[in-house]
Amino acid sequence: QEISDTSFGKGLINFTAKDSSFSVKFAPRFQVRSISSWDHDGDQYGSPEHNFIVRRARLKFDGFAYSPKLKYKIELGLSNRDISGANDYNRNTPRYILDAVIMWQFAENWELWAGQTKLPGNVERVVSSANLQLIDRSLLNSRFNIDRDLGIQLRHKSNLGGNFLMREKFAISQGEGRNVTEGNEGGLQYTARLELLPFGAFKSKGDYSQSDLKREAKPKLMLGFTYNYNQDAVRERGFAGDYMERTDGTIYETDQTTIFADAMFKFDGFSFMGEYAKRTADNEIATEADGVTPTGDIVLTGNALNLQAGYLFKSNYELAARFTTVEFESITSTLPRKQYTIGLNKFIVGHKLKVQSDLSYTTIAGNEDNITFRLGFDLHF
Amino acid sequence: QEISDTSFGKGLINFTAKDSSFSVKFAPRFQVRSISSWDHDGDQYGSPEHNFIVRRARLKFDGFAYSPKLKYKIELGLSNRDISGANDYNRNTPRYILDAVIMWQFAENWELWAGQTKLPGNVERVVSSANLQLIDRSLLNSRFNIDRDLGIQLRHKSNLGGNFLMREKFAISQGEGRNVTEGNEGGLQYTARLELLPFGAFKSKGDYSQSDLKREAKPKLMLGFTYNYNQDAVRERGFAGDYMERTDGTIYETDQTTIFADAMFKFDGFSFMGEYAKRTADNEIATEADGVTPTGDIVLTGNALNLQAGYLFKSNYELAARFTTVEFESITSTLPRKQYTIGLNKFIVGHKLKVQSDLSYTTIAGNEDNITFRLGFDLHF
Amino acid sequence: QEISDTSFGKGLINFTAKDSSFSVKFAPRFQVRSISSWDHDGDQYGSPEHNFIVRRARLKFDGFAYSPKLKYKIELGLSNRDISGANDYNRNTPRYILDAVIMWQFAENWELWAGQTKLPGNVERVVSSANLQLIDRSLLNSRFNIDRDLGIQLRHKSNLGGNFLMREKFAISQGEGRNVTEGNEGGLQYTARLELLPFGAFKSKGDYSQSDLKREAKPKLMLGFTYNYNQDAVRERGFAGDYMERTDGTIYETDQTTIFADAMFKFDGFSFMGEYAKRTADNEIATEADGVTPTGDIVLTGNALNLQAGYLFKSNYELAARFTTVEFESITSTLPRKQYTIGLNKFIVGHKLKVQSDLSYTTIAGNEDNITFRLGFDLHF
Repeated sequence: QEISDTSFGKGLINFTAKDSSFSVKFAPRFQVRSISSWDHDGDQYGSPEHNFIVRRARLKFDGFAYSPKLKYKIELGLSNRDISGANDYNRNTPRYILDAVIMWQFAENWELWAGQTKLPGNVERVVSSANLQLIDRSLLNSRFNIDRDLGIQLRHKSNLGGNFLMREKFAISQGEGRNVTEGNEGGLQYTARLELLPFGAFKSKGDYSQSDLKREAKPKLMLGFTYNYNQDAVRERGFAGDYMERTDGTIYETDQTTIFADAMFKFDGFSFMGEYAKRTADNEIATEADGVTPTGDIVLTGNALNLQAGYLFKSNYELAARFTTVEFESITSTLPRKQYTIGLNKFIVGHKLKVQSDLSYTTIAGNEDNITFRLGFDLHF
Repeated sequence: QEISDTSFGKGLINFTAKDSSFSVKFAPRFQVRSISSWDHDGDQYGSPEHNFIVRRARLKFDGFAYSPKLKYKIELGLSNRDISGANDYNRNTPRYILDAVIMWQFAENWELWAGQTKLPGNVERVVSSANLQLIDRSLLNSRFNIDRDLGIQLRHKSNLGGNFLMREKFAISQGEGRNVTEGNEGGLQYTARLELLPFGAFKSKGDYSQSDLKREAKPKLMLGFTYNYNQDAVRERGFAGDYMERTDGTIYETDQTTIFADAMFKFDGFSFMGEYAKRTADNEIATEADGVTPTGDIVLTGNALNLQAGYLFKSNYELAARFTTVEFESITSTLPRKQYTIGLNKFIVGHKLKVQSDLSYTTIAGNEDNITFRLGFDLHF
Repeated sequence: QEISDTSFGKGLINFTAKDSSFSVKFAPRFQVRSISSWDHDGDQYGSPEHNFIVRRARLKFDGFAYSPKLKYKIELGLSNRDISGANDYNRNTPRYILDAVIMWQFAENWELWAGQTKLPGNVERVVSSANLQLIDRSLLNSRFNIDRDLGIQLRHKSNLGGNFLMREKFAISQGEGRNVTEGNEGGLQYTARLELLPFGAFKSKGDYSQSDLKREAKPKLMLGFTYNYNQDAVRERGFAGDYMERTDGTIYETDQTTIFADAMFKFDGFSFMGEYAKRTADNEIATEADGVTPTGDIVLTGNALNLQAGYLFKSNYELAARFTTVEFESITSTLPRKQYTIGLNKFIVGHKLKVQSDLSYTTIAGNEDNITFRLGFDLHF
């Protein structure tokens, strides 16, 4: 057996080639949870359903290749939830690849990205699922995020004076989400994001990791604004949801616009994240080629607000809470939801080895709907 | 090119972090076989069908994380046989993950396991498919084993005096087998297993590896008894088989009980394994919601006996033989089978690099049915 | 973080065990492309369709195990194109495994291979997709190649005097292509290939890598001749295409024969590859059990010619061109195609890190059909 100069949480494999021609960090990770759920039938809560799941399991490679200016990332999904989404547009295959992207720093403060990766959308989405404060992301995210896509991104950062940082991110991408193999239905998707960090950079990229594990000595804030325009979009939620297929074999297309405003704040163990999202569409109701007969597909337009905060005690226990409200345009016939969640976390080795639990209470159109308790752990090399 | 202080068969990668914060053994393995099969048509054997298959291909990670008291195991299947089993309850995805489990030694002689892994079922099933004496497991196993599930296990061991070891294993799990993502149909599954090792531990965990490759200097024996109760089970063979779906969209549920008694014995190159299995159910015949009309699904109840033995010559050639009989309750309309197998193995580097062949003769309800010859190799880093 | 004595392009992991009991090179790679395509509608070219794709993503392990005489190769596909091809004969699972093969040098100049890997078919096919001169292989290859299969191969090489090398390769395989799990429909497949290298071996196995990256100081030539006989073949293109299923559940079988003659030439940065392919069948028209009623499936018989050449400038830019013509027997009702392609490559680290572009013009039965521009990169550890 060998001895390796690495540590738990820094990658299962982590090295730089002696000739500095490449570096790699390779890390597997997985999340296991138990879930107990009580549905309300209008009169009372029924008996609970208990289940277990390997929610996510991933293999991630990142580092640089040839030159430190050329970084790469490959992330593969292994769990059944990670890889679901086979359809006619990806040859009915599991969606193993999450990220396959190179990031080329072609000039000081400029990067060009090419391949498949997350778009510069809402901060909650771009935070890795390995670094969440509650067991999973919010309803805002599940209904309105813009996720991953295939294409290119241009990224720039600049210092506006003092510690004030500004970052601008632009993407042109295919518009149908990750892992598409069969051409490009509809048009392209355009995304722009502006980030303002008036008090300077967070420690260890803490602006894109939840919970204030680094206990920022001074207040740190990121304000983000994303504008996303999916031209001639063909799916009910832009990058995701059903393809709006017509009986004649063509697909209904409509422009979809999604905007996000979000904030991340951390100070001395306290963390806050707030997000607002709104999706609109030229015409929500998908129609047959005659332009009149509805196909049954409807673009999910509406808006949402998500607020969450937590405090990390010296013991590395954290108490967290979240409030989310999602509302949809009446044309979608989808009822509004509110969700209240409280969470208790124990970070054994930061986000790399942690036990989390949370309890959520959900209402639909103001009526009691569900209570869910979740308990799980993350193991991340 | 680097030089690594490892050896073939000890893992492709095998190291402990310098700060003892984790260890990992990573090993790919695969099995290739050719199969020639002659079916009997009632009068005579027909012409053979020849085929080749990559039967199993796996990637396995194991070791400890953070503390030697916290072990982990991740095993991934790669071959088409390994990953089959997509259905509505796993989002119609391949079942890539075999094991994703952590094992926490929370006190001396006690372990708590959480995640997805094999249940403490019959010894033949728990022996890795990498460590088999014949090319594949028996008919008893394919019809009656309880395989893997998602949940938790509690494990304890104690010394009863002298070398006498006792191990107790308890599991509470979801009850539908591995890789389920969509809730939990029916109830939970409860498993208990007791193991008695009157002459002490086998060398190199030989109680869970077939063939006496370590040539035990003294006789070693393990006796095991497993009781498994799958409450409100929804599949024809508990963790496996068709979901017993009704036309109204609900699923037929019935309690299923499986018991095993098994023994593993090794001494001086000789090895013996014997197993008895029996499955019963409250009501084998799945019915529609009216409780009368049969849906066509039937729980596969019955019992089986499997006996196998082998002798390893000094040359590392082994001769092995197996006899298996499986019988089903008449309500299942499934005919009994008997199978006689002889095998010849050459272990080049133990189970890590071996060539195996076996010849099986099978009868159904006493009538000649099939002769199969298999030849294959295992490569296991 | 560790320091590793490796270099970019030599494998992400590359070592030999200290006791020489095994070696391994592990390399991930992926290819990303953008594609712009203009279809001709008979009158004019329409507006372009733009799309992005992760065309291939692979994990490859190779080296030796136990003895340098026993080599192995495992290659796994990750991209959705790589793994497509689920059907009833592979348990409707993704085809994750590309290669799983051992290669045993049992005598000087002799090797026995067993498992799943590429057959000794046309040179263009056997060249790795990582080492192509244009962004992808030709139409000849997509219609007529014999790809991978499960079985055994016998390989021999000899020196005919001076530098003159001869290689003979024989294969017996299942005949239905890679990843089949369910028996063997139809008969076996037999392949023989003869290779003549009158001026000796290419540098760095350049006979099976496109573009003359090694700038051969002396002319090097390989002439290859492959004969492939797929007895009682059950798919429309031997190893691939639809299974020719009949309404009674049986499958139409017919003998298919494919021949290839090919050449690879390299000298001082110039490279040329030429190939001729021809497939014939006993009876192209699949029929029902009555032997008369057509099932609709037709074996794709015909022939093709593919010529390509390139010149690598000192700057590691390469200009390449390709001409391909494919013709089918009239019974197949498939129109002939001609394709003209020009390509421009920049090799940053040989085939390991390169940017490629090509422009193709295609005619069908002499009529303008399509113009496609592709731009992409390869990253290969």
